[in-house]
Amino acid sequence: MSDFSLAVDAMGGDAAPDIVVSGLAIAAERHPGTNFLLFGDEARVAPLLARHKRLAGAELRHTTEVIGNDTKVAAALRMRQASMRLAIDAVARGEAAGVVSAGNTGALLALSKVVIKTLPGIDRPAMAAIGPSARGDIVMLDLGANVACDTRNLVEFALMGDVFARTVLGLTAPTIGLLNVGSEEMKGDETLRDAAETLRASHLARQFQGFVEGHDIAAGTTDVVVTDGFTGNVALKTGEGALRLVGQLLRQVFSASIASRLAYLLARPGLTRLREWLDPRRYNGAVMLGLNGVVVKSHGGTDAEGFAHAVDVAMDMVTHGFNEGIREGLVRIGTLETGHGSADAAAS
Amino acid sequence: MSDFSLAVDAMGGDAAPDIVVSGLAIAAERHPGTNFLLFGDEARVAPLLARHKRLAGAELRHTTEVIGNDTKVAAALRMRQASMRLAIDAVARGEAAGVVSAGNTGALLALSKVVIKTLPGIDRPAMAAIGPSARGDIVMLDLGANVACDTRNLVEFALMGDVFARTVLGLTAPTIGLLNVGSEEMKGDETLRDAAETLRASHLARQFQGFVEGHDIAAGTTDVVVTDGFTGNVALKTGEGALRLVGQLLRQVFSASIASRLAYLLARPGLTRLREWLDPRRYNGAVMLGLNGVVVKSHGGTDAEGFAHAVDVAMDMVTHGFNEGIREGLVRIGTLETGHGSADAAAS
Repeated sequence: MSDFSLAVDAMGGDAAPDIVVSGLAIAAERHPGTNFLLFGDEARVAPLLARHKRLAGAELRHTTEVIGNDTKVAAALRMRQASMRLAIDAVARGEAAGVVSAGNTGALLALSKVVIKTLPGIDRPAMAAIGPSARGDIVMLDLGANVACDTRNLVEFALMGDVFARTVLGLTAPTIGLLNVGSEEMKGDETLRDAAETLRASHLARQFQGFVEGHDIAAGTTDVVVTDGFTGNVALKTGEGALRLVGQLLRQVFSASIASRLAYLLARPGLTRLREWLDPRRYNGAVMLGLNGVVVKSHGGTDAEGFAHAVDVAMDMVTHGFNEGIREGLVRIGTLETGHGSADAAAS
Repeated sequence: MSDFSLAVDAMGGDAAPDIVVSGLAIAAERHPGTNFLLFGDEARVAPLLARHKRLAGAELRHTTEVIGNDTKVAAALRMRQASMRLAIDAVARGEAAGVVSAGNTGALLALSKVVIKTLPGIDRPAMAAIGPSARGDIVMLDLGANVACDTRNLVEFALMGDVFARTVLGLTAPTIGLLNVGSEEMKGDETLRDAAETLRASHLARQFQGFVEGHDIAAGTTDVVVTDGFTGNVALKTGEGALRLVGQLLRQVFSASIASRLAYLLARPGLTRLREWLDPRRYNGAVMLGLNGVVVKSHGGTDAEGFAHAVDVAMDMVTHGFNEGIREGLVRIGTLETGHGSADAAAS
């Protein structure tokens, strides 16, 4: 039995609670002995739980409200009996080390900030995720928590991205790039140039590779790509969309004729590996970094495999001490900013 | 013989003047009788021209300076004998209807604005290009001419994107989307919401589909995707990067074993069509919209086929009266803005 619990919003997501419970059963095999604390409608969740022996030890707490995908954030904040809210409350109370939800992203982010609260020293939490690149998995943030960012936010994202890449990807000195419209030093706006300057003078100086461009994401030029939430959200979805388009087109190619169907059979091992490698489910689980607890958002439309992966990410964050890493990094960045006399530090 | 000339910067691009002249020869076959006016180093360009019978009627003007990819914009503006500058001068003088260059993007944009000048009524020119989607070719703008945009800029981009899609894609009523981090009306910042409101009240109201997200680009949800130059540049390069990654991975899959090589041979017709369809050369030629003349930027690293395509785009713009379309659209948007009493119109 592990010494911590993981809270799960059983009602969040397009096919909840079914895929949530099935996904949890898959994850439970990989993380035996974990205490899962589910929040959801007992009448619907209990029968699903009963189907999985591996979830025999899971605790279910009955909830009466569900925050829908269309629920406005202001309304969600008032729904104190919602499954998502009560799962988050468990983290805030210290009863659970983290929470996983496939529900409404905006509500999850807002509730987490209000209830779990931001880590001391962090101005704004950010959403991060792992994705595929030519040189291996990379981390990108922010993916939409903050549509507008200042210099301090970008520097904090770099710091959190560094710790995240160490914790979840197991890298010892991840390289970091700031997403821009050109790699020349004079490109982009003042916020980006100031953030680059601050990072060059920080303890991350050796890892910081300066500006990177859109094509550097899939090329894997740096292990961590830092950007504001608007650009990061668009870039993530644009890349996913491009991959999906090629997938559709390849399916058409391989079903066009008898020869091409035979070709598919011959190339199947490699094509299957490629599809698995690019499988969005393998990258499911966006993490809200910078909170007093681990918050993982699963894609709302994922299946059980995808949800299980989001649980894996939460487990990695908890067991590898992500937040302790952030606190250490903040001390180092904090010292620097004070010595540097930066306007951002002064304004905070 | 056509009644207009096209100016060509023979010295711009990584492999200039070779690929410029070879590309022009390919384009000349598709556009017989066009007057090409080349600007470049006579000693290098004349022997290349002599190789192509189809370019026998092309005129070459000797130039002594070349704006390099690393040349700063301020320095480029002072190089009055540069091939790019003199090609642009020819458009400003009315000697050429348009110009094609594979040179320094920033310099081309700045010189075009200063020398050719912005169309009356347009606040800022934008860079647009055509790309592939699941539902056919789409137009995206701005791709990097303006890293920060206000409401008026976005509305003008929508107007120019509409005319561009009619002119170059031949659509009669292209649908238009504003790129955002969510499709809900309250998403994004005030600039985006105001732009959406203005478009809903404009002559483009029927074509305007509201907000679209990153994945809508490759899905082809709308024919025109409007965004600021920072986001557009990142999205374009992210999408290209994702496609390039899949291309690399597929090459690995099909060369991994004898079976997979055989598979490639069997599926080759379909795979070749797919590759050709996604070929960046087929989409080469970013257009600077909103100037008193047609300015097309070819990718600096393209080959002769790609450069020829950029020439095709310039020819389309000139022969289909792109700028006349913009003027008509501006009259309609202008009337609306005055009636609407918009702050943007008042500030202009």
